[in-house]
Amino acid sequence: MVNPILIEVTRGPLVESWHRGAIAVANASGAMALQLGDVVQPIYPRSSIKALQALPLIETGAADHFGFGAQEIALACASHTGTELHTRLVAAMLERIGLNEEALGCGPHMPLGGAAAKALNESHRKPTQLHNNCSGKHAGMLATALYLGEPTAGYWQVDHPVQQRILHVLVEMSGVALGPEVTGFDGCSVPNCTMPLSTLARMFARFATGNGLAPERRIAVERILAACWEHPELIAGKGCTDTIVMRELPGRVFLKTGAEGVYCGAFPELGLGFALKIDDGTKRAAAGATMALVERHYPLGLGLMNRKSTKTWRGIEVGTIRSSAAFEDALAGLKS
Amino acid sequence: MVNPILIEVTRGPLVESWHRGAIAVANASGAMALQLGDVVQPIYPRSSIKALQALPLIETGAADHFGFGAQEIALACASHTGTELHTRLVAAMLERIGLNEEALGCGPHMPLGGAAAKALNESHRKPTQLHNNCSGKHAGMLATALYLGEPTAGYWQVDHPVQQRILHVLVEMSGVALGPEVTGFDGCSVPNCTMPLSTLARMFARFATGNGLAPERRIAVERILAACWEHPELIAGKGCTDTIVMRELPGRVFLKTGAEGVYCGAFPELGLGFALKIDDGTKRAAAGATMALVERHYPLGLGLMNRKSTKTWRGIEVGTIRSSAAFEDALAGLKS
Repeated sequence: MVNPILIEVTRGPLVESWHRGAIAVANASGAMALQLGDVVQPIYPRSSIKALQALPLIETGAADHFGFGAQEIALACASHTGTELHTRLVAAMLERIGLNEEALGCGPHMPLGGAAAKALNESHRKPTQLHNNCSGKHAGMLATALYLGEPTAGYWQVDHPVQQRILHVLVEMSGVALGPEVTGFDGCSVPNCTMPLSTLARMFARFATGNGLAPERRIAVERILAACWEHPELIAGKGCTDTIVMRELPGRVFLKTGAEGVYCGAFPELGLGFALKIDDGTKRAAAGATMALVERHYPLGLGLMNRKSTKTWRGIEVGTIRSSAAFEDALAGLKS
Repeated sequence: MVNPILIEVTRGPLVESWHRGAIAVANASGAMALQLGDVVQPIYPRSSIKALQALPLIETGAADHFGFGAQEIALACASHTGTELHTRLVAAMLERIGLNEEALGCGPHMPLGGAAAKALNESHRKPTQLHNNCSGKHAGMLATALYLGEPTAGYWQVDHPVQQRILHVLVEMSGVALGPEVTGFDGCSVPNCTMPLSTLARMFARFATGNGLAPERRIAVERILAACWEHPELIAGKGCTDTIVMRELPGRVFLKTGAEGVYCGAFPELGLGFALKIDDGTKRAAAGATMALVERHYPLGLGLMNRKSTKTWRGIEVGTIRSSAAFEDALAGLKS
């Protein structure tokens, strides 16, 4: 099956590039409210499931034990831009559990945020593991291991109790079996299991509504959502789609981007969860398709963002990024 | 027509992302030696045709008049990384024609090269138009206008003699009509006309062989090719596919990348020209497909490069970027 074109990039009179992909939107009862493209083929959710990977941090009692509040919980769910704010808070999380940057297993990379990268260069410093966009998630994993008396060494390995606990939560939340045959490794070295988009959409519908969740899990999910809406700047950073949308629509839209063109999210008041993947893995298309879905229900007038590639270096618009007619048709038929 | 998958990106046991596209390889007589996907639909060649856009600089006599040698000619064909070397040489080109950075119309952007961008940040300077990857091309356009007594103001506009002269060369080289209905604008604000990949491949086969070109044009083309092979570091920069391959294979392979997943090139001793476009516009796939073609004839053992997205931040390989079986089959059938 060839996925449909979701996003088109025009220049002058022509469509210059296009992005195929698939999207699933599920409602609280698990039924598909929208499906376009192949929503059955498994994909790696990558960072889009960080909020679910953070559940053990709360459910084990580790977050409360170490006095982690909304900021720390938001950072555990974040793909952050590596600003001074993000790195300082993650360093403080590590200090509170008696560890430091060296305990992290995520590896260093330049801050995702342009301003943060510039500031780091200007100060002639190299990026540390704190700058890794996943450092908050890793600090949360270390906190859980320490609280439960597990070794912190190798906490990122697939057979470590920290990863097995996360795997168990994902199996419960998704209702599908997840074994070694569907396991790859994320850029930050932790395991990432493939799932169909339809499964991911149902998982985020449950996440949005609490439908079918045990009372303790419902409380943990609500705490995670509240933390992300309270601190949207910690989830990603300035100029990022997730931060902008969650700042505009707290309580109404939860969004989380993942690498290779993945996006997942939840619309609590509509009772919907969604998951999409762009075949080619590009961010401009994943964010564009996500914004088209968000604006279908909550017209923010933000457009599809990521417009850099359709402007000249003098700032003149010479093209556009838009939803395809097929995608617009599908969105129009979406029952909210 | 849906283009075939050319490049696959794997992670663990699965193909995570894939890139569709089309490729045309033409021989000296204009026949197609290989075609895969839709090679008839027009595409914007973007920067892949800079070496052809540089022809008037030589053919008018402007390059000789201003004493431009191989370095300046290579820069006129370049998408450079904005290092100190590149910007110093372009500034010298402008000085030699009595102009400065302000005369450029390309607009400023941060250097494409990571090291150059870092150096600029470290010195607390902002990018100028000299750092624009197209600054050498623009300096060449200004030189031609000045030499012929044309106004330099608005040299980047579609109706300026500089752009009309380039359009005329492209019509001659391609053998197709190119009018306003197929004209878009490049990121550096100059016009860019769409052409089918088959036409571009034939154009580069002529470029590689001189077949069917007037003697004066043949000399100009040879001078351009010689300049690029003599100064591959000026054409792009450290770590760039074009620079690496032309340094390894001078006289044998000419390569030029373009934005939105375009690649063109010429193999003089094989009498072949090629053009490819990745549907989704990603560089990793365009460079990967190009390297697969290059290595089919000249096994450099460089692999498909651009491997960053398949490694963890600690440098461990967790996936691969590879040619699809369909693309490999097509390459195997290519007569050299």
